Amino acid sequence: MEKIVVIGAVAAGPKAACHAKRLMPDAEVLLIDQDDLISYGGCGIPYFIGGEVGDETALRSTSFHAVRDADFFREAKGLDVMTKTRVMKINRSEKTVTVENLTDGKQENIAYDKLVVATGSKPNRLPIKGIGNERIVSIGSLHSALKVQKLLKEAEINKVVIVGGGAIGIEMAESMEDTWGIETSIVEYMPQLLPNIIDWPFAQMLKNHLEENNVRVFTDEAVTEIEENAKGELIGVVTGKRKLEADLVIMAAGVSPRDQLAREAGLLVAAKGGIVVNNRMQTSDPDIYAAGDCVVTTNLVNGKHMFAPLGSLANRQGRVVGDNLAGIPSTFNGITGSFIMKAFEISIGCTGLSQQAALAEGYDAERVVSIQSDRAHFLPSQEAMPLIMVVERKSRKVLGVQGFGPMGDGVLARINAAAGLVAKQALIEDFSNLEMAYAPPFATAVDALNATANIADNLLNGRFRQTSIKEFIEWIENPETKSDWVAIDTRSEADSKPFVDRFKDRWICIPYPEMRKRYKELPEGKQLIIVCGAGTRSYEVQVFLDSVGITNTLVLGGGLMVLRRLGMLELPE
Amino acid sequence: MEKIVVIGAVAAGPKAACHAKRLMPDAEVLLIDQDDLISYGGCGIPYFIGGEVGDETALRSTSFHAVRDADFFREAKGLDVMTKTRVMKINRSEKTVTVENLTDGKQENIAYDKLVVATGSKPNRLPIKGIGNERIVSIGSLHSALKVQKLLKEAEINKVVIVGGGAIGIEMAESMEDTWGIETSIVEYMPQLLPNIIDWPFAQMLKNHLEENNVRVFTDEAVTEIEENAKGELIGVVTGKRKLEADLVIMAAGVSPRDQLAREAGLLVAAKGGIVVNNRMQTSDPDIYAAGDCVVTTNLVNGKHMFAPLGSLANRQGRVVGDNLAGIPSTFNGITGSFIMKAFEISIGCTGLSQQAALAEGYDAERVVSIQSDRAHFLPSQEAMPLIMVVERKSRKVLGVQGFGPMGDGVLARINAAAGLVAKQALIEDFSNLEMAYAPPFATAVDALNATANIADNLLNGRFRQTSIKEFIEWIENPETKSDWVAIDTRSEADSKPFVDRFKDRWICIPYPEMRKRYKELPEGKQLIIVCGAGTRSYEVQVFLDSVGITNTLVLGGGLMVLRRLGMLELPE
Repeated sequence: MEKIVVIGAVAAGPKAACHAKRLMPDAEVLLIDQDDLISYGGCGIPYFIGGEVGDETALRSTSFHAVRDADFFREAKGLDVMTKTRVMKINRSEKTVTVENLTDGKQENIAYDKLVVATGSKPNRLPIKGIGNERIVSIGSLHSALKVQKLLKEAEINKVVIVGGGAIGIEMAESMEDTWGIETSIVEYMPQLLPNIIDWPFAQMLKNHLEENNVRVFTDEAVTEIEENAKGELIGVVTGKRKLEADLVIMAAGVSPRDQLAREAGLLVAAKGGIVVNNRMQTSDPDIYAAGDCVVTTNLVNGKHMFAPLGSLANRQGRVVGDNLAGIPSTFNGITGSFIMKAFEISIGCTGLSQQAALAEGYDAERVVSIQSDRAHFLPSQEAMPLIMVVERKSRKVLGVQGFGPMGDGVLARINAAAGLVAKQALIEDFSNLEMAYAPPFATAVDALNATANIADNLLNGRFRQTSIKEFIEWIENPETKSDWVAIDTRSEADSKPFVDRFKDRWICIPYPEMRKRYKELPEGKQLIIVCGAGTRSYEVQVFLDSVGITNTLVLGGGLMVLRRLGMLELPE
Repeated sequence: MEKIVVIGAVAAGPKAACHAKRLMPDAEVLLIDQDDLISYGGCGIPYFIGGEVGDETALRSTSFHAVRDADFFREAKGLDVMTKTRVMKINRSEKTVTVENLTDGKQENIAYDKLVVATGSKPNRLPIKGIGNERIVSIGSLHSALKVQKLLKEAEINKVVIVGGGAIGIEMAESMEDTWGIETSIVEYMPQLLPNIIDWPFAQMLKNHLEENNVRVFTDEAVTEIEENAKGELIGVVTGKRKLEADLVIMAAGVSPRDQLAREAGLLVAAKGGIVVNNRMQTSDPDIYAAGDCVVTTNLVNGKHMFAPLGSLANRQGRVVGDNLAGIPSTFNGITGSFIMKAFEISIGCTGLSQQAALAEGYDAERVVSIQSDRAHFLPSQEAMPLIMVVERKSRKVLGVQGFGPMGDGVLARINAAAGLVAKQALIEDFSNLEMAYAPPFATAVDALNATANIADNLLNGRFRQTSIKEFIEWIENPETKSDWVAIDTRSEADSKPFVDRFKDRWICIPYPEMRKRYKELPEGKQLIIVCGAGTRSYEVQVFLDSVGITNTLVLGGGLMVLRRLGMLELPE
């Protein structure tokens, strides 16, 4: 009778264990965890603290409301379970693990035929003064979530500083501000929120949205010290630029794989951490599998190792482990990094590489921003849904897609559609023709994602030449930086008027339908920056002007709607 | 200078003309239409009649509120435009079209270098008595939409019969019932709504939902006569089974390609209608392109001709025509038939083949139904989102995916994700690992689409054996049809009790967590039908029972939640 031991019982571990047991009913499957709270939806913690999830047990219940505790796994799933038990050592030569009962301290060796390491991740701890203060909490486990909830209910928490502007930090900021009405600040070390995931225009739109919702956001600021008073009580957080008062500090500065056990056992571990596995989720020891936050996976876009601590991947990997334990040769080939999150009234998501990440990887990567409607533009319920597409110039591959839209599943629908294609190294034309489902309440006839691919096609074919948004903003604020620039506003006279009034001879209006008659009015010897609401009219005007030999034009991609959402400068209404 | 003539100015025509003009600014591009209302979003007509779209011009306006009339195309796009002009004949040998000015009746010949046929489709007309009555309207054009609106406002319309249970018929039913409060009936000739698109369980859920919203639905009924009084006024609609009173009849019995002009010119036309084009959208005459509702395209799943009159496809095809006119070798390779629609509070969608369509094509096709949550099940906002996956047994290809969920973009997110994969002949495992974006407000950790693929995997691997929903319903209603069946309810005692009370010895409760201890209580010599809420527990119980040698079991796939939504039988609460 095969004996399978699984270390870690949060997401990948239970999935692998239960699936293996179903496939091999005769096997003895033992699930070990150092905690007593197991098999929970860690991604739900911000919603638990935010009060949307009434009870901690909901996070560790099945869809049919059974609590997934040790007895549940024993009775319903037929597993052996040891909780409050820590695996101290993997003894590969004798195929045992040494475990310690955390209640009575007793140690024993347990034999395995196959071992699964699903030890998860641990929150990063900054090496700064005061980091041990008891009012600093990492949202890494249900216990810490319960601690935060207790503090919020029982202590007087008026000001919170969240260290880290990734997804968890932002979700926590929402629940702190929105549910608890606490003055909330996010401090992010990198120059933008969601660094390395989202390109700056959408990160900036997100920052703007958070600030509109009273969350203070400080990017490009390192936390240098946790300030305590003489009694050792938390006072605040010191950054390179300021002091922020705080009654509570939430550390959300990323997580690292818990790979120590594997490392000590001599398993192959990536240079930056994370157990190395093949596409069967097998470690360098063929009798040992690993899955979830403790492994590195492969980025399907660039073929490189990637650390992606996500519950969704842990579950999928766990199933692949279960299959392989039972001799079914399933594979987990890697990921593109599909991501989505809610922040107050918006959703933001992506799959694949951002332009920034792609450039860092050496790709000749271009980026287009579109602002299309999320549903038929004749419906009053329609809203703008900016998308970004990152493409490689030479190969015409789509390296990544990002979306920023109203809360709902509209962005999700485009990210999910892109995910499968990006993973298959699809080209721009695959996206142009991707058959998104259409009816007016759901999309535009040419879906926003199709339209964005068409813009990328126009760009790579040289029909569309765009200015950088940053340079445009710089010019608006400091005209002297680009003294030969003139904006050509192709909107109606009425829409353009406040801009013409304010920017004077830097801003000329020739409405789009009149351009074919009036193009000779355009100033000579200037760099013409064509603008409109969303960029569509500007593109058409650029193409027309090219045809009459006026080629010193650049389009503001995404138009003035992008600029407004950035919230970085004041524009006339 | 190249002269391009485009016949038809609704969707594919203007798209091809404008795109070609942008790519070839020196070309002379002439757009001809027999109507004066051109370039409109025909799919928006039900929303115009339903009052959501305030004004007919909104349906033919750009996103920046310019009305797309003949002058717009002339001034903004640089096209030549002839409206109220009918093309009578294509003279291929001399490369001209004969046109007639519908205002003055004058005819002339116009030369072309390249011709684009985008003549669209026409509503099917039933060959029955009374079909010419003036209170019968087809929603095929803006003019008919305006006529309906005028009738609704000015005549006393109390009862409407909609002939045809496809998307347009259902959308019209919603606007009639919901906006206008008119007693509304749908009559569909086939045995279900959305025939050939959606499999019966979801078609039945849709019917149930329409009926809950006061729309009467009569399927499997042919309309045999339009009844008129002695004055020739509309009285009602006669079907094979009943008479339905009506003040207004809306014909929505499908459309057929307008291919007469092409046919008369000797272009290749499919046996069932529709101009045949290659993947450059070129007809059998290389100087003539065709796009939109007048062509047949290729079904990418089975490689066969398919007629798919959708505005979204017309637009994509139009762009491909424009490219090819300019010498850019873009292709439109075919479709999988992505579809979505709103009906009151639900959305229903699909891509690829239904099981019914697949079986008719000779596939050894299986179908699984899942009922997973659309977002994390611990969030109060979560709702069930049934999905269907149709797979080919031998190849493990996913032939199609269908979804039925709450109104919103949740179903869209799964259909769009599936569309790209189905088009690429992807396998079940591609769907199991498809990297859907995850956060609790958007999905479950294992997305509903991934989970549905896992169920299909279990089915094809023989670990999951299911009963037919229809047989189960038959047995509930007529126990004697299957005297050896016993339902094994794996829900809690409390949930099961009303069923045990009602169905007596046909219904036994052994809760899921107790099965490993109590399986010996199961009756012998019976066909055991394992049931639960959504099918998940039942599957696990089936696997366990197999391991102890009890193999005479079948699972009710999708569980009692599917049965309830069908609304076909009364079940205890």
